[in-house]
Amino acid sequence: MLDFNFYNPTHVVFGKDRLAELNDLVPQGAKVLLTYGGGSIKKFGTLDKVHAALAGHEVHEFGGIEPNPKLSTCIEAAELIKAKQIDFILALGGGSVIDATKYISIAAKYDGDDYASLIKHGFTPVPVSEAIPFGTVLTLPATGSEMNAFSVISDDTGKYGVYSPLFYPKFSILDPTLTFTLPTTQVANGIVDTFIHVVEQYLTFPVDARFQDRTAEGIFQTLIEIGEKTVENPEDYDTRANFMWCATMALNSLIGSGVPQDWSTHMIGHEITDKFGIDHGRTLAVVLPSLLRERKDKKEAKLVQFAERVWGITEGSNDEKIEAAIQKTEAFFHSLGVPTKISDYDIKKEELGDIVKQLEAHGMTALSESGDLTLDIVEKILNDAY
Amino acid sequence: MLDFNFYNPTHVVFGKDRLAELNDLVPQGAKVLLTYGGGSIKKFGTLDKVHAALAGHEVHEFGGIEPNPKLSTCIEAAELIKAKQIDFILALGGGSVIDATKYISIAAKYDGDDYASLIKHGFTPVPVSEAIPFGTVLTLPATGSEMNAFSVISDDTGKYGVYSPLFYPKFSILDPTLTFTLPTTQVANGIVDTFIHVVEQYLTFPVDARFQDRTAEGIFQTLIEIGEKTVENPEDYDTRANFMWCATMALNSLIGSGVPQDWSTHMIGHEITDKFGIDHGRTLAVVLPSLLRERKDKKEAKLVQFAERVWGITEGSNDEKIEAAIQKTEAFFHSLGVPTKISDYDIKKEELGDIVKQLEAHGMTALSESGDLTLDIVEKILNDAY
Repeated sequence: MLDFNFYNPTHVVFGKDRLAELNDLVPQGAKVLLTYGGGSIKKFGTLDKVHAALAGHEVHEFGGIEPNPKLSTCIEAAELIKAKQIDFILALGGGSVIDATKYISIAAKYDGDDYASLIKHGFTPVPVSEAIPFGTVLTLPATGSEMNAFSVISDDTGKYGVYSPLFYPKFSILDPTLTFTLPTTQVANGIVDTFIHVVEQYLTFPVDARFQDRTAEGIFQTLIEIGEKTVENPEDYDTRANFMWCATMALNSLIGSGVPQDWSTHMIGHEITDKFGIDHGRTLAVVLPSLLRERKDKKEAKLVQFAERVWGITEGSNDEKIEAAIQKTEAFFHSLGVPTKISDYDIKKEELGDIVKQLEAHGMTALSESGDLTLDIVEKILNDAY
Repeated sequence: MLDFNFYNPTHVVFGKDRLAELNDLVPQGAKVLLTYGGGSIKKFGTLDKVHAALAGHEVHEFGGIEPNPKLSTCIEAAELIKAKQIDFILALGGGSVIDATKYISIAAKYDGDDYASLIKHGFTPVPVSEAIPFGTVLTLPATGSEMNAFSVISDDTGKYGVYSPLFYPKFSILDPTLTFTLPTTQVANGIVDTFIHVVEQYLTFPVDARFQDRTAEGIFQTLIEIGEKTVENPEDYDTRANFMWCATMALNSLIGSGVPQDWSTHMIGHEITDKFGIDHGRTLAVVLPSLLRERKDKKEAKLVQFAERVWGITEGSNDEKIEAAIQKTEAFFHSLGVPTKISDYDIKKEELGDIVKQLEAHGMTALSESGDLTLDIVEKILNDAY
């Protein structure tokens, strides 16, 4: 097991009808800004319930946060916070709204004029020391943003991962019933995103981290069991609750502590989203199978463990087990209606080179758990994924 | 899945040789009290390393905290803290030292004169609002106290569970190498204690909480794999690291969130320790098998899942699977040198009634996940366990 630090102070409030507790969770007397995306939060009554719960507070709103939130949108919200002297932000939505809110929380305390510089520190903490505290009400399980310290923000030059220990929400309300009205596609994409978050922290090389491995395998197995069911029966509380809790646990540092990680699929996927506007989870589904086939020698031991423990594949050579596990993973994504080939989207083969160029422009030239996944290999992965 | 709150702000610092980081972890300029038990912390050099790491701080010591720590000892430490105006406590040891430190942290801020009243609130929070902040350096994995908000304190009238949200350590250093010098028996007892912590949160009735179930099963499987190895090879870093992390994860609210719990084995075990002075983990090992046999109808579905998933028992009727799983559990405890019968200790059969009387005196008359485990049933469990 590798050395690690684990620290996650977010208070999770999980269960049915818990919005009423907002009045106790938000600091007394705080001026609150509600951040959200499109109209669904209004249409299905969540916004009204939140206003009712916060009846004793002065409450402002900032809507219209887009998927893959833009720096310019976040700056607008930060300026509103400064103008209205807001004390607490409450994010209502999925990963995009929560990611935006994280950035807004530091931007609202930032005195400089180079907002863009704050998103370009990668996995080192943004060099700021203050943030407006915030909580979240999660409506779309997928990114884990409700219980981690990561954010992804885009500007004209690309899509950037941003990290700060100030980014842990003070609390996150996880009410599975709030997901009942989600479009099927978003649920399916969220399941794939969650599955691949686990892959990135698990399919590397063994370091004898047994709790982490088995917990990761437990999330895989749960997603496989409940994936189709929760897409088909949106109001089945228990399958939705299991999906929601797995999505949070998949990316809150628990399974990633003390193990190597390989975020290559995400790095490549981000460029596909950036260039072609394809949903994050769906970009991962087209990259992963090809990447695993290309990297099966590097990942052999863990791929065999994945085949045996997650998919129950016990027959055949290591190579055969690995190929069978990759095929079962593809079939699982298909069962959710998520394609696994780039050619399933409106992308021409000759455009694949642009993705490689973007990675290069963003300095992503040595990916993987060992830093040996070069751009030549990315090109091969993309071609095989077409 | 049941509704739940999850909140655990302890910062875990896991790995080899991390004591040097104490200087950054303890607040600058704080006057520190080191709390510890017997001489092992001195004998093996840990105390010296801690003093070296805290060279910039004013450091005091309070040693001699006994196993099953006594209220009177804790009060003595609290009075020292008041006298010396200590700002931070650092617990060096296992569950007893950490449990004592938790109680000391609130007692040192308590102005009243009824210290004993503070330990008699059961699972409701102690009605206090202030504590001296504290960290821990764990030397004996077992109780999970290094990452939870529970403590167990004894006085002349019995052994009491104490709970407060103020009881989360600010940080806990988990260095597996600090366990290399532990006596074999303590390691074996710690493995059994950890195993039964998982049992108490898992072997109840199903509520479709898949992440929690699979994570619990992962801890069981890991303990079974590494138990004998880590007892026999104390300096095998990886098995010790896996044991240490499992012990923490077994009782930090993770696997217990959203599921029913049954702490009957612990409640009965506490009375055996209180009356006969037998180590905590060892009392659990004599109660559990008999309790599971007695309660197999109530716990049937989860016992079958335990048999199948943890022990790989797939043949036979439910009853046969359950009996086989209990026998394998007993054999596992035996493999660690831990007996599973009360008659293995110097206790007369006619003394068993005293344990029942103590439970009655402490108000423990309706145990289990459904509150239907009466004292008559406890008596039968104890007789069958003899």
